[in-house]
Amino acid sequence: MIIAEFSVIPIGTGSTSVSRYVKAAISAIKNEDITVKPGAMGTVIEVGDIGELFRIIGMAHEAVFRAGAKRVVTNIKIDDRRDAEASIEGKIGALR
Amino acid sequence: MIIAEFSVIPIGTGSTSVSRYVKAAISAIKNEDITVKPGAMGTVIEVGDIGELFRIIGMAHEAVFRAGAKRVVTNIKIDDRRDAEASIEGKIGALR
Amino acid sequence: MIIAEFSVIPIGTGSTSVSRYVKAAISAIKNEDITVKPGAMGTVIEVGDIGELFRIIGMAHEAVFRAGAKRVVTNIKIDDRRDAEASIEGKIGALR
Amino acid sequence: MIIAEFSVIPIGTGSTSVSRYVKAAISAIKNEDITVKPGAMGTVIEVGDIGELFRIIGMAHEAVFRAGAKRVVTNIKIDDRRDAEASIEGKIGALR
Repeated sequence: MIIAEFSVIPIGTGSTSVSRYVKAAISAIKNEDITVKPGAMGTVIEVGDIGELFRIIGMAHEAVFRAGAKRVVTNIKIDDRRDAEASIEGKIGALR
Repeated sequence: MIIAEFSVIPIGTGSTSVSRYVKAAISAIKNEDITVKPGAMGTVIEVGDIGELFRIIGMAHEAVFRAGAKRVVTNIKIDDRRDAEASIEGKIGALR
Repeated sequence: MIIAEFSVIPIGTGSTSVSRYVKAAISAIKNEDITVKPGAMGTVIEVGDIGELFRIIGMAHEAVFRAGAKRVVTNIKIDDRRDAEASIEGKIGALR
Repeated sequence: MIIAEFSVIPIGTGSTSVSRYVKAAISAIKNEDITVKPGAMGTVIEVGDIGELFRIIGMAHEAVFRAGAKRVVTNIKIDDRRDAEASIEGKIGALR
């Protein structure tokens, strides 16, 4: 599994609150068969491969435009480990 | 409050497991009087101002060197909102 | 056009120098028909759409594994503006 | 030397163009005795130590509020290498 975090920021919306846009992004991927963990600074996902990762984040990114944004800055951090199994739970557990 | 997320990556350690270094970073700030939420892709903190933010993340960053790393890449994302109160819980709650 | 920046970090390579891996990533995309600007902290690209963006960065990401890495952290920042034309040169020019 | 890249994003400004705010951030640090390289996706700086780094980026971050923003998202990536000399030019040269 690949673990990744992404965040979407709409630019020029006129409001300092952007939760409506972030909700649109998360909502766009909630029916996908992957683990999705929304957080205060980004959404963490667990996906099978890099193709699936880009497909999912592309859906979230496009949803912000559909919600009305004209410019979107999307940050993605991908942690792709191929010598051992990885999971969100495993990574958090290793910090205890 | 300022909400921020940071992650530390030691470079050239010889092992694909880096949890020892991440634990050192989190451990270095755990006795500070701030909210600290370790996650799979980074640690989210809630601090009073930008000076405190940099002091805390500087402590975490230095701890990775003390744990043995010779090169460290630290990523920080700061969300600083000054027109309304902000908190980790408030940001997550707004996504529901 | 979409402007984006990406960086690749191999984890656990045993050497604090990672330029060999970064060169492999850039080399993998150099024959693509896009603008590629390597920099000190990441590579900036200019692509036509989000599908092309992910295809290109996927190639760079995979190249780091082919160069020998077993774990790769790839950061991507996408600036996608749809109300006006955008370019690397235009963005830098606007800062003068 | 530490090499770092930072970017500032004002949230809720009402315009998809943010160059005015980015210029304010860069302008705030231009008289400092450090190397500053503005780019399309962020500004790369070369500083002596982590304290100076945070001082400089704190100045840039505050300048965005003074320019009128009420919420600012600032991203920072720090590359701190202590086993060898590092520089912006050296890092770019190693990619050739």
